[in-house]
Amino acid sequence: MGVGVSVSKYVVECQRIFEASGLNHDMHSYGTNVEGEWNAVMATVKQCHEKMHEMGAPRCTSSLRVGTRSDRDQSMQDKIDSVYQKMQI
Amino acid sequence: MGVGVSVSKYVVECQRIFEASGLNHDMHSYGTNVEGEWNAVMATVKQCHEKMHEMGAPRCTSSLRVGTRSDRDQSMQDKIDSVYQKMQI
Amino acid sequence: MGVGVSVSKYVVECQRIFEASGLNHDMHSYGTNVEGEWNAVMATVKQCHEKMHEMGAPRCTSSLRVGTRSDRDQSMQDKIDSVYQKMQI
Amino acid sequence: MGVGVSVSKYVVECQRIFEASGLNHDMHSYGTNVEGEWNAVMATVKQCHEKMHEMGAPRCTSSLRVGTRSDRDQSMQDKIDSVYQKMQI
Repeated sequence: MGVGVSVSKYVVECQRIFEASGLNHDMHSYGTNVEGEWNAVMATVKQCHEKMHEMGAPRCTSSLRVGTRSDRDQSMQDKIDSVYQKMQI
Repeated sequence: MGVGVSVSKYVVECQRIFEASGLNHDMHSYGTNVEGEWNAVMATVKQCHEKMHEMGAPRCTSSLRVGTRSDRDQSMQDKIDSVYQKMQI
Repeated sequence: MGVGVSVSKYVVECQRIFEASGLNHDMHSYGTNVEGEWNAVMATVKQCHEKMHEMGAPRCTSSLRVGTRSDRDQSMQDKIDSVYQKMQI
Repeated sequence: MGVGVSVSKYVVECQRIFEASGLNHDMHSYGTNVEGEWNAVMATVKQCHEKMHEMGAPRCTSSLRVGTRSDRDQSMQDKIDSVYQKMQI
């Protein structure tokens, strides 16, 4: 907020941060999915906020949905695969 | 909520509703992006909630981010393209 | 987005729209809870987006969490009461 | 997810975690606002996820909106006050 209407140059910097993080990530048209351990993911999101402020944005808001599960490993791709597989039946 | 831990069969039904809607949509690993006029999009999301209840889910929660712009047309793809284009520079 | 860093005058107009709607609503420091039938609530949120554009905001993003339940009536207040009651035990 | 339809006992435990954290927090009917330094807030949210799993929830999803600003201090109460003040004019 406070940097005008076009924000793609800010999104670019966040993408670079996600790439540098080594975390598995996947940008879509309204956000980016990131997978990893809690602390690593949150540290990366924090870096994005810090970068936005450094670039001159006085306010920065993120909308995060954070999912954890304790019953089994499940990757981002597993979730997609599970839906597509069921759709073919 | 109230239907156990595996929800992919519910996601499948939502995907079918989005496909039947004729709206441009794109499922990713933590949601689905949909593009169209406000009323058409919201009617489709409502259908998803109704279907979840019909399938036996007593509670259904959606987390929506809704973006509208009045200055120009911009598709979901335009946004992605804009970021990737800047990343190559 | 695109209207600077202070947005309280926009929030004020949204509050006025919620008040005029006749829906039960409750503003907190990071949003407003609204309770009612799906169509009435969504029509009111749409009015907010339209007003933001009218006031000159070229882009408007809302982050909505939408909860429906088919098993019983439950007001916003019921949910709060249920938690506070359990905390006293 | 995976713990049935009534979740207030889980909300109660999260409230206890926020209270123990020493962070300024405010529960409303669809979430809790928390204010503080990034690391302290995120560590507290992480504790909530861990507690949910400990209590037997196999999957836990949070929907967070995270706002940071670099231009000035602003408390949760300041934001509310700013809106109410403008509404009285």
